[in-house]
Amino acid sequence: MAEHTSKQFDLELETIRTRVLQMGGLVEQQIQSAVDALMAADIERLDKVVADDALVNSLEVAIDDDCQHIIARRQPAASDLRMVITVIKTITDLERIGDEAQKIARQGKIIHQSERYQLPRFREVRKMADVALAMLRRALDAFARLDATAALELAQEDLILDEEFSAELRQLITFMMEDPRTISMSIDTLFIAKAIERIGDHAKNISEYVVYLVKGKDIRHTSLEEIKRETQAG
Amino acid sequence: MAEHTSKQFDLELETIRTRVLQMGGLVEQQIQSAVDALMAADIERLDKVVADDALVNSLEVAIDDDCQHIIARRQPAASDLRMVITVIKTITDLERIGDEAQKIARQGKIIHQSERYQLPRFREVRKMADVALAMLRRALDAFARLDATAALELAQEDLILDEEFSAELRQLITFMMEDPRTISMSIDTLFIAKAIERIGDHAKNISEYVVYLVKGKDIRHTSLEEIKRETQAG
Repeated sequence: MAEHTSKQFDLELETIRTRVLQMGGLVEQQIQSAVDALMAADIERLDKVVADDALVNSLEVAIDDDCQHIIARRQPAASDLRMVITVIKTITDLERIGDEAQKIARQGKIIHQSERYQLPRFREVRKMADVALAMLRRALDAFARLDATAALELAQEDLILDEEFSAELRQLITFMMEDPRTISMSIDTLFIAKAIERIGDHAKNISEYVVYLVKGKDIRHTSLEEIKRETQAG
Repeated sequence: MAEHTSKQFDLELETIRTRVLQMGGLVEQQIQSAVDALMAADIERLDKVVADDALVNSLEVAIDDDCQHIIARRQPAASDLRMVITVIKTITDLERIGDEAQKIARQGKIIHQSERYQLPRFREVRKMADVALAMLRRALDAFARLDATAALELAQEDLILDEEFSAELRQLITFMMEDPRTISMSIDTLFIAKAIERIGDHAKNISEYVVYLVKGKDIRHTSLEEIKRETQAG
């Protein structure tokens, strides 16, 4: 009986882990679709991204519910408890990433459905989006493989993404000052770039939860040096 | 012995609830200080807000830790478990609000330490900040009094705040197009207004957790009509 219960419990933990990865995969698709559709001026596809955010939200509520049932019924302790808490936090960040993808799609619709003098700087947007998507995949992979070393890489990549955003902002301000007709385009680009930068932030958060999960140590709000020490220690 | 344990448990639950409200109070002060210091060009006070974000972060980590100990040791169920999960989620949103206050302070330093042709539109910033602060206080009050009706008000106020942000954005674009010398000022104002709008979002999130806490029902991602029905039902 105890063994059956233990197997059932393991199955439940495995199920929520799998559902997190499914949710992560859906959110990755949302980002990819939003950016591709933005550049292709594919209104139908942009509409689909906006609508599909409801799926992301439903997944969050469902997995959250599963987690609370596990805590109430199975009374997990130690690393099992950390897994469940990590899942609760991770799905919140994934849901927020989903919101950013939806924002990009909505901004895309506004851009393509109004008389814009110029389209946004797609090349820079694509560059930043590729970085943010790679960060998200790395974070989900770290979660799947219980890899605590990803947090260091993601902390560094997040700094790079922030730098790219700042550089883009400075460039846009220069354009706007040289030619006021570029203001709408610049603001459009700015909002999309900001959404992408936030996606990177959330991916970094997820990698930090994994360190906590693996090592039982909370590294959020620590410096890069401290993260380095923590992820390289035994 | 059972009674002693039960009293101890009640004390632990009461303690984390109190700590959430302390953290909330600190975060309110951070917002207030950041906005006041921004308008008074008080660099020293802006520096203090930036530094004190570390306190906010420490509180989050500490309360999170308390919650996990409670779950592991006390194995709470039903409404006690919902309280602990609500605390874990609420402190995450409070910590993010703290980050936004820090961003406002950092932006304030940049504004006052560089040669700006014009200062940001403080009157609009102040107006939005007052709304966001009131929302945060309402959300914390709802948490303290287990008041599920606040979520409806906060959902409506959040829409108002979003509208104010959009209106401000349109106004800034108009300024920028009419006079490119106003671009720096406009971008400054935009970032501060965005941070304030995000504070309102987080306050709304907290009020939604309270509905879940009180009614055992997750109303996140539901429409205003559904929230109305849910918070007005028995």
